[in-house]
Amino acid sequence: VRIVLDAMGGDNAPQVEIEGAIQAVKQNKNITVILVGKKDIIEKSILYTLLPDKYKRRLEIVNATEVVSMSDAPAEAYKKKPDSSIIVAAKLIRAGKADALVSAGNTGAVVVTTLLTIGRIKGVLRPAICTPFPSQKGHIALLDAGANVDCKPAHLVQFAVMGELYSKYILGIEKPIIGMISVGEEEEKGNDLTYATNELMAKTNLNSKGNVEGRDVVNGSVDVVVCDGFVGNVILKLAEGIGAFVFRFLKDQVKKNPFIFLGALIMSGAFKELKKKVNPDEYGGAPLLGIKKPVIISHGSASPMGIKNGINSAATFIEKQINEEIEENIKKLGGEK
Amino acid sequence: VRIVLDAMGGDNAPQVEIEGAIQAVKQNKNITVILVGKKDIIEKSILYTLLPDKYKRRLEIVNATEVVSMSDAPAEAYKKKPDSSIIVAAKLIRAGKADALVSAGNTGAVVVTTLLTIGRIKGVLRPAICTPFPSQKGHIALLDAGANVDCKPAHLVQFAVMGELYSKYILGIEKPIIGMISVGEEEEKGNDLTYATNELMAKTNLNSKGNVEGRDVVNGSVDVVVCDGFVGNVILKLAEGIGAFVFRFLKDQVKKNPFIFLGALIMSGAFKELKKKVNPDEYGGAPLLGIKKPVIISHGSASPMGIKNGINSAATFIEKQINEEIEENIKKLGGEK
Repeated sequence: VRIVLDAMGGDNAPQVEIEGAIQAVKQNKNITVILVGKKDIIEKSILYTLLPDKYKRRLEIVNATEVVSMSDAPAEAYKKKPDSSIIVAAKLIRAGKADALVSAGNTGAVVVTTLLTIGRIKGVLRPAICTPFPSQKGHIALLDAGANVDCKPAHLVQFAVMGELYSKYILGIEKPIIGMISVGEEEEKGNDLTYATNELMAKTNLNSKGNVEGRDVVNGSVDVVVCDGFVGNVILKLAEGIGAFVFRFLKDQVKKNPFIFLGALIMSGAFKELKKKVNPDEYGGAPLLGIKKPVIISHGSASPMGIKNGINSAATFIEKQINEEIEENIKKLGGEK
Repeated sequence: VRIVLDAMGGDNAPQVEIEGAIQAVKQNKNITVILVGKKDIIEKSILYTLLPDKYKRRLEIVNATEVVSMSDAPAEAYKKKPDSSIIVAAKLIRAGKADALVSAGNTGAVVVTTLLTIGRIKGVLRPAICTPFPSQKGHIALLDAGANVDCKPAHLVQFAVMGELYSKYILGIEKPIIGMISVGEEEEKGNDLTYATNELMAKTNLNSKGNVEGRDVVNGSVDVVVCDGFVGNVILKLAEGIGAFVFRFLKDQVKKNPFIFLGALIMSGAFKELKKKVNPDEYGGAPLLGIKKPVIISHGSASPMGIKNGINSAATFIEKQINEEIEENIKKLGGEK
């Protein structure tokens, strides 16, 4: 499989991207990675120059002179930076020269560019960002995590269909249970969007539990959590914020008291496990589900391992033909409505 | 001041309520508490019977034969349980026999009952639940935390006005900074509601920072966080869920390894501080801002200290004339629009 990697995307690009790509081609001999970015910089990087030829054969470089930064407005970047790494990468997909795309860059730019350049899977109304999120039993799929701030019931039902397949094939849940975020579990608790979505959801074959609450995102009661991109984004950012808050609070306590410091030292193994559990690198990123070809959006601060896992995740999408199955299941949905 | 307390509200009613009321009258000799609930049970409670007469004089009991449970549908309970403690309590306020109300009962029932029985402050479009929420510097005010699932821009602006006064008088922030939850800090990031609210907010004298993100709820960058009740409810429940998740995770690690157990034991002081910091009992509950007389909704699992703090908080509302100031500031707002 041929995976195109936006080499200029992340906070520490292109070094992290180069290292992640190298790890991926070393680990899996079926994978070819196409690094898209400033060719001279990539070719001169020590990691690349030292790479044995047998791996270099599966590490192509395509030049792109421009870079979309994290602060660029997505739609504007799409218009004004035609030779940016993300646009060149997406065009390689459209031209059939690669099968999937991975980027740790500006999320909005990845969404806009892939939507306009590669397009949607037939029948899909809106692509959605699907984030693997740590819960008390493994990981759940949370979508939409921010691609669509205003959603209609039909969008949420499609998100459920796509999230179910992601949960099944990538997170390994045999029969995922779907929940929709609301303000209470009872059907009458919610807003206009949740009422109409529940009604629509009931007409499908989806394994839906109906409404769930904020706490169900993490307590393991469901496997797929569906919400609009506004709520999904708030959930993700709040969770990050609370994580930082708790660690900061404990650190401050540790600083105040050498005795507590000793305890923290002894407990460090447990804290490491917790950090590992909530590390977004584990699944290498969040797919933008609904785009014709697999697109994985890695965290801006992803490590080389995160990039490698993102590439592996993209490869799994191709291998398991997840996008084909999305198209099929969305089609079935249309018939049921 | 005369505070009416729904004695049958919380998960451990009426014992916790009786104990909380006793603590309040002992601590503050200006406070009279009117316990509303099953009179025979309250009078027979050991704590009450042992109470010296000088305190009993400021601990009145009013009988109410019915109880609204946590699982009752609020609107239905309002219709079908006219002699419930919450309705009798609200009627005492309406009749001018008490100045403020505290309940740890069914939140929806408190909202519906006080709205219909006591009514709104003049000019207030919608009352909002304002929750004190732990952040990296003290506590912020989060509103609406669940009273209104669908909000209009004018509602959110009024929430900002009310939250500002709560932050100032109860949380002690001299010049509170207001932020509105969105999906990014830039003005163009958001949905139709946030765009229109920002526009309206700009025409006021509010000390508004514009958009904030989920992480800003806890990172101390703002003092008042405004959002619709759907998002606010998700934030509250998710935060509870993450707290439970982290503690459960660390507990499991501790169980697996006696060495880590030792570390946790040594660190227990730090964990206790953290639990104290996130304890909802500290401020005794969330006011339902916008109702003519102060209404405090305590946590269902509030301790006696939580109930006592709720009563104290209600007394502060009266003492500082917060509701009068809300009316005044909402009136000013009307002129500015």
